[in-house]
Amino acid sequence: MQADLICIGNEILTGLVENSNAGFLARRLWSAGIEVRESMVVADDKQAIQAALNRAFEHSEVIIFTGGLGPTDDDMTRDAIAAALGLELVLDREWLEKIDYFFKQRGIQMPENNRKQALIMKGASLLENQAGTAPGSILNWKGKLIVLLPGPPNELKPMFDSSVKPVLKDFNRGKLSRLKTLKCCGIGESSLEDKIKYLGKWDLPPISYVARGYEVHLQIKGRGSVEEAASAIDEAEKRLRQVLGDHIYGSDDDTLAGKVAELLIANNLTLSLAESCSGGLLSSMVTDIPGSSSFYLGGMVAYSGEVKIGTLGLDRLLLEREGQVSEAVAAAMARGARAKFNSDLSIGVTGIAGPDGGTAQKPVGLVYVALDKGQDCYCKKLNLGGGRLAIKERTAQMALDMIRRAVLAGARY
Amino acid sequence: MQADLICIGNEILTGLVENSNAGFLARRLWSAGIEVRESMVVADDKQAIQAALNRAFEHSEVIIFTGGLGPTDDDMTRDAIAAALGLELVLDREWLEKIDYFFKQRGIQMPENNRKQALIMKGASLLENQAGTAPGSILNWKGKLIVLLPGPPNELKPMFDSSVKPVLKDFNRGKLSRLKTLKCCGIGESSLEDKIKYLGKWDLPPISYVARGYEVHLQIKGRGSVEEAASAIDEAEKRLRQVLGDHIYGSDDDTLAGKVAELLIANNLTLSLAESCSGGLLSSMVTDIPGSSSFYLGGMVAYSGEVKIGTLGLDRLLLEREGQVSEAVAAAMARGARAKFNSDLSIGVTGIAGPDGGTAQKPVGLVYVALDKGQDCYCKKLNLGGGRLAIKERTAQMALDMIRRAVLAGARY
Repeated sequence: MQADLICIGNEILTGLVENSNAGFLARRLWSAGIEVRESMVVADDKQAIQAALNRAFEHSEVIIFTGGLGPTDDDMTRDAIAAALGLELVLDREWLEKIDYFFKQRGIQMPENNRKQALIMKGASLLENQAGTAPGSILNWKGKLIVLLPGPPNELKPMFDSSVKPVLKDFNRGKLSRLKTLKCCGIGESSLEDKIKYLGKWDLPPISYVARGYEVHLQIKGRGSVEEAASAIDEAEKRLRQVLGDHIYGSDDDTLAGKVAELLIANNLTLSLAESCSGGLLSSMVTDIPGSSSFYLGGMVAYSGEVKIGTLGLDRLLLEREGQVSEAVAAAMARGARAKFNSDLSIGVTGIAGPDGGTAQKPVGLVYVALDKGQDCYCKKLNLGGGRLAIKERTAQMALDMIRRAVLAGARY
Repeated sequence: MQADLICIGNEILTGLVENSNAGFLARRLWSAGIEVRESMVVADDKQAIQAALNRAFEHSEVIIFTGGLGPTDDDMTRDAIAAALGLELVLDREWLEKIDYFFKQRGIQMPENNRKQALIMKGASLLENQAGTAPGSILNWKGKLIVLLPGPPNELKPMFDSSVKPVLKDFNRGKLSRLKTLKCCGIGESSLEDKIKYLGKWDLPPISYVARGYEVHLQIKGRGSVEEAASAIDEAEKRLRQVLGDHIYGSDDDTLAGKVAELLIANNLTLSLAESCSGGLLSSMVTDIPGSSSFYLGGMVAYSGEVKIGTLGLDRLLLEREGQVSEAVAAAMARGARAKFNSDLSIGVTGIAGPDGGTAQKPVGLVYVALDKGQDCYCKKLNLGGGRLAIKERTAQMALDMIRRAVLAGARY
């Protein structure tokens, strides 16, 4: 079974907004066994939307639209599709009340514009929006499934998972294509490819890989019946795990921070952080995980030497002798955080994120990450490239991986 | 003049890789005065590529392909397009030598597969690749410009800027389209539209809006000759600034954190942060800005009450009386950070990011942000929705806006 994705919005076409919905929907459709045939972005323009619909209709059984369900005049997805299918738009009184309530709660009167968000195509089912005023809708029309979703990712994603996924499962009774993604870290793309080449003699399904900062993701594609696809993927996963070991930290929707949280909680360990060049990004990645307050005690962002001395108790002489960006300072920051927050584990990060501040001896991209776990404290040195944001990101990913490996090693004792 | 973007690759269609090339190319084309009509992603499949080419040919003068120029069997962009246009592929001996040299330098013999990367369509010009073995190519065919670019962004971006941009400038001698984005915050999308509607009597160019968390971006589209487009945009900007005032924080590539950094540096003010529910995100946004170490003294991430007492000097009785999520605690956190780091301004954030921890009195999404500037300390209360990550993001944006407004107000004294 095939799907077409049609993302509507001048803001995407002009490059103002990255289209993160397309990737999310593609991953979800694949895991429901539905292949994405084509993914397109069209303007806020009735004719363009209708042309895209007609084209998708020729090829695919599932057609998903995103965007253009807002209250403003350039939001015309609803009108364009209803007109193309010859369907009337009817007012959903219950949803209108919800919109009204949404504004009342915020102490604002509902602007008249928002009224049109309660219109849905006759015959379609309304999909509730937990995070905004634009409902989605889903329609089975001449044997095809037409889905309208709001553009903001924080509205689209929960709506898809709660309301569209179950319908798709029912709708897709044909052949399946299945994807599984294995997520690796602490190994480069070419070393990884070398390791996988040894598996050549086994008849593996197609595997693609893509590097994402400090991580490399492997995608395995299985085809055929449910059983064939599943067993091909299982077999490949088994072989890959044999050669890659704990370079694989998780699969599919797993994140490195999520895995770290899982491991810390399972082992009843607490964490604190002292960040310099990563500037709070590591802390933010950890606190993105629901429930992180149960193991994350607190963090410091200490840029200047004075702050490192004043808040983390660093020795002034040490700072002067070793310099702010040094192994000794990273370790002292980790120890300082661990003492201050009284945590089981702690991380200290110091480095030069750039663009300024580098020297010949200590260039931009030089980073030290130390992990203190009480009985010992060790440090890794990195030489990173790719600009300030990439340096912050890789540093934070690397620190997460150090925590992960420390807990795994401890769990094996 | 219009362009179509055709991005080729199963890795994008399956959601393994985000398609960052499309946004980059869109921004570049717009700034060259060329409008993107449609942007699509198609599979590594000859027929799909040719169908996309035919469709683009009907509508647009510029057609840009990305991806599928690699050495492996699933790289078929070159073949598919040459076949569709009835053009022969000829070997570029000079490029073949470069590929050979590229491998020799790395101590590897050139794999036979890579030979096909030196094939280009008869009549096309080769575009040098500084970062890889896949050259691009550009062809003026029946009055249309057809451009083939490699998929990896670190190869595509420099190639576009050095080799395609100058050709486009020459090619586009027709009418121009120009874009300007005004970035607003502290005002909802519909209230913003209401305000703009008052401007209806002025003949404004088309304006689109997009909400991004706490921000709304307005995009003004000017058309006609260079002078017409520029003067229409200038006029619209003047009118919009009149009705929106300091809700507009910047334009085009500006970011809220970048504006805050600019203002703090210009006014010689320093900043410190104490975050609970935003978990380090605010700190990370600030430190994304190059040079932030000149004004950002440091931050604390303090989740638990004990840490708030131990590191920020909060009063235990106050915490017990008011509860962790309260105006008084946000203010005490701000004051604690300001005292600890000795900064001019400070922010204290406390709230419930969820999904757990909410009660009837204090639901998930309840957030207090306090700003302390010495002579006074004030606090804003927010009721946010949209899930943990959206709550973190809006809280951080709101805090940045409070700093911005405080500095602007001070500068006006």
